[in-house]
Order: sequence, then C-alpha cells, then structure tokens
Amino acid sequence: MSVTIYDVAREANVSMATVSRVVNGNQNVKPATRKKVLDCIERLGYRPNAVARGLASKKTTTIGVIVPDISKSYYAELSRGIADIATMYEYNIILSNSDKRPTREVELFEDHLGKQVDGVIFMSDSLSDEIRKEMATANVPVVLAGTLDAGTNLPTVNIDHEDAAYQAVKKLIENGHKRIAYVSGPLSRDINRLCKKVGYEKALKEANLPLIDEYFIETNNTYDDAYEKWKLIRDLDERPTGIFAGNDEIAVGIMNGLRDDGLSVPDDIEMICFQHTLLSRVVRPQLSAVVVPLYDLGAVSMRLLTKLMNGEEVDDVSVILPHRIEERQSTK
Amino acid sequence: MSVTIYDVAREANVSMATVSRVVNGNQNVKPATRKKVLDCIERLGYRPNAVARGLASKKTTTIGVIVPDISKSYYAELSRGIADIATMYEYNIILSNSDKRPTREVELFEDHLGKQVDGVIFMSDSLSDEIRKEMATANVPVVLAGTLDAGTNLPTVNIDHEDAAYQAVKKLIENGHKRIAYVSGPLSRDINRLCKKVGYEKALKEANLPLIDEYFIETNNTYDDAYEKWKLIRDLDERPTGIFAGNDEIAVGIMNGLRDDGLSVPDDIEMICFQHTLLSRVVRPQLSAVVVPLYDLGAVSMRLLTKLMNGEEVDDVSVILPHRIEERQSTK
Repeated sequence: MSVTIYDVAREANVSMATVSRVVNGNQNVKPATRKKVLDCIERLGYRPNAVARGLASKKTTTIGVIVPDISKSYYAELSRGIADIATMYEYNIILSNSDKRPTREVELFEDHLGKQVDGVIFMSDSLSDEIRKEMATANVPVVLAGTLDAGTNLPTVNIDHEDAAYQAVKKLIENGHKRIAYVSGPLSRDINRLCKKVGYEKALKEANLPLIDEYFIETNNTYDDAYEKWKLIRDLDERPTGIFAGNDEIAVGIMNGLRDDGLSVPDDIEMICFQHTLLSRVVRPQLSAVVVPLYDLGAVSMRLLTKLMNGEEVDDVSVILPHRIEERQSTK
Repeated sequence: MSVTIYDVAREANVSMATVSRVVNGNQNVKPATRKKVLDCIERLGYRPNAVARGLASKKTTTIGVIVPDISKSYYAELSRGIADIATMYEYNIILSNSDKRPTREVELFEDHLGKQVDGVIFMSDSLSDEIRKEMATANVPVVLAGTLDAGTNLPTVNIDHEDAAYQAVKKLIENGHKRIAYVSGPLSRDINRLCKKVGYEKALKEANLPLIDEYFIETNNTYDDAYEKWKLIRDLDERPTGIFAGNDEIAVGIMNGLRDDGLSVPDDIEMICFQHTLLSRVVRPQLSAVVVPLYDLGAVSMRLLTKLMNGEEVDDVSVILPHRIEERQSTK
C-alpha cells in the first residue's frame, strides 16, 4: 500500500535511477527533471526508505539505549542528555526498559544488536557475567553511562562516587557529629557496596570514629521503604545525630518519617544526600546534597559513543565528571 | 566485519537457504542439520539481520514515540506505560524529544516515517496545522497520548481534564471558599485554555462566584516560575483563600513561596492540584490532588496502536480514562 520508488518513477516518467539520484542529493540531474521528480514525490507522498538505505550503507544511524526504568527521574534525566547529543549527530534512539533484570538485559542487548544498531549505551547498577560476555564480543561499541561495574574495562562515564560519599560524610564530621548513619540503596549493587559505603567508612575511620552496624541501613531505594526504615533509626538507644542518604528519594523518606515523629532537621538531626532529582530543592528544609550531573553523564556518554562508532582515537575510555556539594538547609 | 549468513553457510557446509530456514524457524530442516547450523551461528557470533527481515516482511516491528521532554516526570511515566505494552507485543521504540517545537515535531515525524515505523505515538500539548496535515496523510496509524487537540479526529487516549478541573475547584467551593485562584500552565496550550480553565470557570459560575482576572495566573509550568508568581497573589488587596494549581510542580512552587512568607497551608490557604509525579505525596503538607493515571494513559495508547496497526476493528478511537481526587493535607 505504501508508495514505492517505482510509483514515483512511473508518475514522473523517468528511470528509478533518476529518482534515486534526486532522493540521495546527487547533482547529476537536470534542474527541470529534479523539479518534476520532487513534485511527484510530494504528490504521491513517497517516503525514501531509510531502512533500505541503512542496509546498503551498513549503517542504521540508530543506537540502542538500555535503561532500568525510564519513569525514574534519574534515568529520564540521563536519557535526555543522551538524546540531545544523538540528535546533534543525527542518530535515532531505540529505547528499552530492563528493570535491572539480568536476563532481560541480555535479551534486550541481543535484540538491539539484531536490529543492527551502530552502538549501545547501557545503564544499570552492576553487570551480570552474561551481559559482560555479550558486551565484550559485540561487533559494535558499548558505553556504560552512570553505571559502575568493577569487573569490566568497557568505556564508561561516571562521577567518583566514593569520593563524593567521603566528602559528604566529612562535611557532617566537620559539623561536629560523631554518630553518623548511612541509609543506603541495595548493597547488591557495586555502586553502593564498593563506592558509597567505602567512602562513608573511609571518612569515619579517618576521624577515628567507630563503624557501628546499626548505623548502616539498607533500603530498596524508594521513598516508602526509607519512610518505614526511619523507625529502625528512631528506636536506637543511641540515635545518630547525622544522616547520610544514598539518594534524595531516600533522604525525603527519612526526613518525613523524622518530622512525622516530631523531630526536626537540622536541629535534631543534620542530613546530606546524593541529589538525583528536583526533590532536594523543593522540600523544606531543602536538602544539602552531592549534585550529580545526570544530563552531562548522558551527553558525554553519547559523545564518547559517536567517537567509538566513527573509529576515532580516544585517549581514555573511562571518563570521570566532576561533582560538587551544594549546602542548603538540612546541614548547619 | 560483521558475520553474514554466507559465512555461516560456508562454515556449516550448507546452502544459505538452509541457514535462512533455521533462523526463521522453518521446520523443513533435518534435526542434525539444524544443530550444525545453530552451532556455527553460535561459534561465529552471527546475528540474523532484523533490518533485512523487516524489509522483506514490510514490517519493522518498530514504533516511533515523539515526546516533548523525556526528563520530565509526566512524560517519563507515560513513556514507561507505552514501553511495557510495546515489549509485550514485541515492538521496539524509537524515542525522540521535540521540546514541543512545531517545526521539530514535523521533522521528527517525517524522520520516523522514513525509518519505516509501523505506527507513531505522539505527545504534546496541542498540534500545529502542519503536523495535523502530516498525521492525516501518514501511511501508518498515529495515536495521541495524553495530548489534547481540538482540531483533529485522530485516535487519542486521555482523561477528561475539564471535568477534573471542575471537580477540584468544586471541592474548594464546598469547603467554603469564595475567592479561588487558578495558577495555570501556558494558555497557548489547548489543554489549559479549553479544558482546565473552562472547568475552573464552570465551577465558579455554577456557585455564582465572580470570575476575577487577578485570580488567574499563568506560568511556564515550572517550579521556579510558580515560586516567583506567588508574589502576584501575595500582593493582592483581596488575597484568595483557595488555590487550584495546574500541576504539582506549580503547586509546590506556590506552596513554598507562601510558606517562605510565613503563611500556612491549609490554615491560611487551601490548595488542590493536578498530580503528575511523586511530588504531591512527599511534600509536607501532602497535596490534595486530581490523580492522573499517567502510566495507564501510555499503556492504553500503545494497546490502541497495536490494534490499529493490525487492522483490527476499534469501536471508539477516543478513549477517556477515569480520574479521581485524592484528598490529603492541603485541603481541610
């Protein structure tokens, strides 16, 4: 039912080769002929077949983006950075949600390769052995965006999460706190276990403060779970006076739990967290936070991918972007 | 450099037709031959060319999704609903950001058609004449998701925004308020001008309350702009006692402005808004809100598109999903 190059050629009374030349911008066509062909293309509503062109040139100018959950602000913001640079370099994006399920990640990766993408940007918290193997043998470049994996040498764009956590906890120590809790995302994730937790512990050790098991609280990264887990902190004999939270959704859950129990931030407890969304800024008190440059992580990942896809020389495939701490109202 | 069907055929010592049969699940191949071919496919890392298969079957099993800005929670949540149903029906998604720029929307739409997508889901606030024309003449089905346009009969999935606004304002009237402001998104958008504003005015008229120009405040839909615009309300001689906000980001901006000026919600001013994100629930006081089923809007849009792409009979191409009002702490 769709209009083919053959229909245009017949309507314009020229050869298919001539139509092809016009469509592909070849100058070797008389102006009058070009005009006649373009008129027919418009009249018939012919769309040059980009899939067929992709096949001929061995490039689809499409990249795959595998994201845990696009409805989460963290990944939505990262993806916007990827998309803007992709547009600039005229790449389309095939986007898929993995929910961080390892089997699904492998399926999606194979599916994207099967669709002949020119490259893949992958986001998750850590990599399974299987996806690591798939990536190592893929015939197109892969970049990990905001995704930490200890077991791979794949190109990656990230911030230094260990240092960021260290700086945040150090800030609480400098404010005089000796009992500091860390409310974390799942420890099954490299980024939490090998980076943020290590930074937290490093700051405590450096200040000769003891590591106390009860001051480490694991959550599933959601507001609701953090709101519930606050009760574990509340019921401790020696309650912490400073809290470091793995992200802003966790921080707001803890802060609301604390407030609903009649306590106050920062008077009773000072807080600092990783900022991933607008949340840190719009709650009262506003949260002091490590600002993660999510948009930039996405944009730089895509730029790195374009270089790798073009076979350009890249000095360092492990890019670390700077982070900064923004002091607001939850610390003094 | 990539492995072709020819390489597999040579390695397995069979014809290319045989490899093709194995890849396409054709049963007309001896088990021993099938095994030999599959072994070679695995050993060589051959990926069947889905683009080429798409070309042959005239289907790419890919759909286009054009979204204003994936980093906004509203669209991120909608897109997740689309993606989950797309996965269920084995469609890939090409995702592009338009920033609601009319020329860009047309470019993206043409680009997606050129990539031979089987259908398009489009999100915006209203449609330009040009994109309306493009959609009317497209050779694949188009569904508008959460996108109101008065000038088109295209398939659409939405809630009844006028009734939702009417119900929300009526709630404030029932609570005894006579001076009710409406803090809106841009009036250039059909959804604000022809739906939400109409519902607001209808509720006031029905209660014989006057429409007061100063009680209508237009914002650009962001937290920061709403925070600033609060001052227009604050400085009125007769300040409103109830505020209806076009979305939760606006509502939080107003509420924080109000609070930073020493006023309180709901004691000084009661508020109700459209809920698009987690915000309404995590701020204190929690915001009473019209709950918009964003994920469902996306999911139902995609389901409708699969029916249209399959040529199934569809009774009604304009689907209205139910909304509900959730009373929390910003109303009494």
